[in-house]
Amino acid sequence: MNNPVINQTIKSWFGYIKQANKLLDQISDEDLLKPIAPNKNTGYYLLGHLAAVNDLLLPLLGLAEPLFPEIKSHFIRTPDKAERAFTVADLKEKWSAVNTELEKQFNSLTADEWMQKHTAISDEDFAKEPHRNRLNVLLSRTNHLSYHLGQLVLLK
Amino acid sequence: MNNPVINQTIKSWFGYIKQANKLLDQISDEDLLKPIAPNKNTGYYLLGHLAAVNDLLLPLLGLAEPLFPEIKSHFIRTPDKAERAFTVADLKEKWSAVNTELEKQFNSLTADEWMQKHTAISDEDFAKEPHRNRLNVLLSRTNHLSYHLGQLVLLK
Repeated sequence: MNNPVINQTIKSWFGYIKQANKLLDQISDEDLLKPIAPNKNTGYYLLGHLAAVNDLLLPLLGLAEPLFPEIKSHFIRTPDKAERAFTVADLKEKWSAVNTELEKQFNSLTADEWMQKHTAISDEDFAKEPHRNRLNVLLSRTNHLSYHLGQLVLLK
Repeated sequence: MNNPVINQTIKSWFGYIKQANKLLDQISDEDLLKPIAPNKNTGYYLLGHLAAVNDLLLPLLGLAEPLFPEIKSHFIRTPDKAERAFTVADLKEKWSAVNTELEKQFNSLTADEWMQKHTAISDEDFAKEPHRNRLNVLLSRTNHLSYHLGQLVLLK
């Protein structure tokens, strides 16, 4: 990896993962079960959502199969509900395992590979829109993480 | 500007500015005066904060003086309070004017200039930490914007 701009983007991603971990350490498991605002998502749901989105980065970036395919149906495009399929401790473990795997995978990609297309775009569309590469997914997911960190912090 | 990664980063910034504008259009001025959650910041404060942070990008990136230096003391490191120094309409105008200026300035920077240091770091520190360049500030501010968008959306 010898492209300083790509390095910065990856470094930024891991900086926000670290910030998320610090924040999760500051919120009790009991408080994580509360909604971030009246009638809004709970911290539990946001944690599951972030873990599921990160896990799906593995296939989206063409790196690996998801580690925990069973969480997707609960936390992606499914609204938060009173029923809890997982414990907070279990979700935290999955969140950590996924991030460890992403770190390993990200460190093995070359600069050229970051500029290649992700798996959700056709060759034809990628020829027309070459910015829709792996790096763009990472930029987008970093901001998605920040977006939900701004919500999780309300439980602190 | 011929660096595709830098282009993507700038494109991403303007994408979130656009998302912010769309969101602001969906929240009434009356609702913007409400807190995002009980005892938390109001939408008014977050709008002023984002406008002030964007305005301060002009000097931080060494591009220009801030357009509205008078807003800084109200919205940066000053807690939200009941007193309202500006109207929502006024803050929205400032927000738009600042973003127009940033767009003009960003489009005039070369790839090399994006990799140069920002004004809040010394030459000595920059030699040791070359990633602390203009582009890194932009990455960080894009995530800062996303963080607060995740809060503003609670008023929708």
